[in-house]
Amino acid sequence: MTAHRLVVAARPELADQAGRILAPIEAELAATEALLTSRLASDVPFIRKTGEYVFAGGGKRMRPALLLLCARLLGRRAEEAVTYAAVVELIHTATLIHDDIIDHAELRRGRRTVHSIWGSNLTVLLGDWLYTTAMQMALAHDNLRVIDRLCDATLRMTEGELLVLQRLGDPGLSEEEYLEIIDRKTARLFAAACAVPALMAPADERALVALERYGRSLGLCFQLVDDLLDYTASEDEVGKPVLSDLKEGKLTLPLLLALPRLDQAARRKVENVLEDRAFTRVTAAEILELVRREGTLQEVLALARRHADAARAALADLPDGDERRGLELAPDFVLHRTA
Amino acid sequence: MTAHRLVVAARPELADQAGRILAPIEAELAATEALLTSRLASDVPFIRKTGEYVFAGGGKRMRPALLLLCARLLGRRAEEAVTYAAVVELIHTATLIHDDIIDHAELRRGRRTVHSIWGSNLTVLLGDWLYTTAMQMALAHDNLRVIDRLCDATLRMTEGELLVLQRLGDPGLSEEEYLEIIDRKTARLFAAACAVPALMAPADERALVALERYGRSLGLCFQLVDDLLDYTASEDEVGKPVLSDLKEGKLTLPLLLALPRLDQAARRKVENVLEDRAFTRVTAAEILELVRREGTLQEVLALARRHADAARAALADLPDGDERRGLELAPDFVLHRTA
Repeated sequence: MTAHRLVVAARPELADQAGRILAPIEAELAATEALLTSRLASDVPFIRKTGEYVFAGGGKRMRPALLLLCARLLGRRAEEAVTYAAVVELIHTATLIHDDIIDHAELRRGRRTVHSIWGSNLTVLLGDWLYTTAMQMALAHDNLRVIDRLCDATLRMTEGELLVLQRLGDPGLSEEEYLEIIDRKTARLFAAACAVPALMAPADERALVALERYGRSLGLCFQLVDDLLDYTASEDEVGKPVLSDLKEGKLTLPLLLALPRLDQAARRKVENVLEDRAFTRVTAAEILELVRREGTLQEVLALARRHADAARAALADLPDGDERRGLELAPDFVLHRTA
Repeated sequence: MTAHRLVVAARPELADQAGRILAPIEAELAATEALLTSRLASDVPFIRKTGEYVFAGGGKRMRPALLLLCARLLGRRAEEAVTYAAVVELIHTATLIHDDIIDHAELRRGRRTVHSIWGSNLTVLLGDWLYTTAMQMALAHDNLRVIDRLCDATLRMTEGELLVLQRLGDPGLSEEEYLEIIDRKTARLFAAACAVPALMAPADERALVALERYGRSLGLCFQLVDDLLDYTASEDEVGKPVLSDLKEGKLTLPLLLALPRLDQAARRKVENVLEDRAFTRVTAAEILELVRREGTLQEVLALARRHADAARAALADLPDGDERRGLELAPDFVLHRTA
């Protein structure tokens, strides 16, 4: 069931791969779901109702799965790992909920966003509640380095989203700045999810470096593919409209790489979309054509592949076995996903 | 300087009292300010800028002052207490920032609110950043019970604000529900601020019960007075318009107690304001007159006084000295403040 969730809307041939990745941690993933559900049983009905809505809405549970695989790889206690798996999913969810308010997003994973149903006000507070609940849950196993790590990742994510907002609609965003943003916005929580098991007793500093590197590279790969999908996937596949990033004023790498190579007329088209925050004067198809012509989708995919390779390479000195094979397969899964 | 801050806009005769309360902790309060400033030195310019704006804007630093007094009373380490004092102020500030977004408040302490200058989107993220920074700072002294306590108070505050929003404009709110709301929204963080020192090593379970009771009673007293001030203070004094609670649809105790005693015409006036969220069909003076006529302002003040007495009584078994005298004076200060 969890394997199935991971490949919802993905290519059927990936189902086997997801199954192989998740096989060692099926029980822990189920325990993570149960823990999430039990923690949402607040005495405030709104939290129960919206919490259930959010967590029933799918989500690939990538971060919990990575954390649980890394914990098994290092032979760490499953019960403690399950707690932290739930915590990273709560942090991730709180971030999504606040980001969706900010982006005025109507859809997430093909379903209506929380704020579009219940309004922004209650939803800001739901996000706050989820963040704090995550931190409180993380206290259960008395490991301050783990909590510090999770706080740090959360701060970097918030800062990443702040940077996104401040550079919204700015075609002068450099590739370096873009990479800094996706590092904070996405890669740091992936890195934390993978690094946390190395901080669980007994802390393993060598594994910490390796798993952090793995998670960060995988996170960068994940976000690059995410940004590619905004150009290449259909609305049916990703559950939100194509080129929705650009429509919100968010310039991602495929277009950032293309921009300096475009002639003035073509560049003007991009600027029109950024000004209008809509495809009124220019169609989405025209923008897609510009990007395709410059070949930058391939360049971004190549960069994502290099990060996938770096992720796999980081695992070289870790114990061999099903868990490591699962972690080695994950970058391929991320590269080939279509949603 | 800190004594002065505490009585900004308050009655001059209270300045002496504030000075007496704060005398034992002047150095720690200054250290708390320095710590707050240093933690806002983020590499994201927006956080630095808005953080400075927020913390330069005054605020009475009630919660840090209470925490520091309780810590000195129990003889706990000043350095650790200063950390937690900064943490409670960060949590309080994050809450205010999110609440002001939700309430569309334009003014706070006579200055423009953060979101009214920088917009709601960036401000949601600033609040998130402050909450997480508070939690991360709290980790420094390796005391999980303290952090758990602070998480708990934060969750209750968020739930309190959720309950406020859900019952907005509802004249059927009972006195019991109102008290439940102000307990969560305000009293729990006061209780945590006072209880934290008893959780610092060596934990003192008897002092914990006493200081928690003190803080909770004082917090209830504080919020009752706050709700009274919305009826009795001028805009100059409180830095926001009079009857702004009612205009936002928030029914507080003075009116809740009066409502069942009003005749239909009078009740209709209140309902008009709740429907319009403005004083268009009914003036603020008419509502004030209704409440004055029913004498409920005196009843609420009497209740606030009972909580002030309960706060003082809770201190009976704690060590005598300047700190305890400061804590004993605090309820009077809260009762007589005009802002």
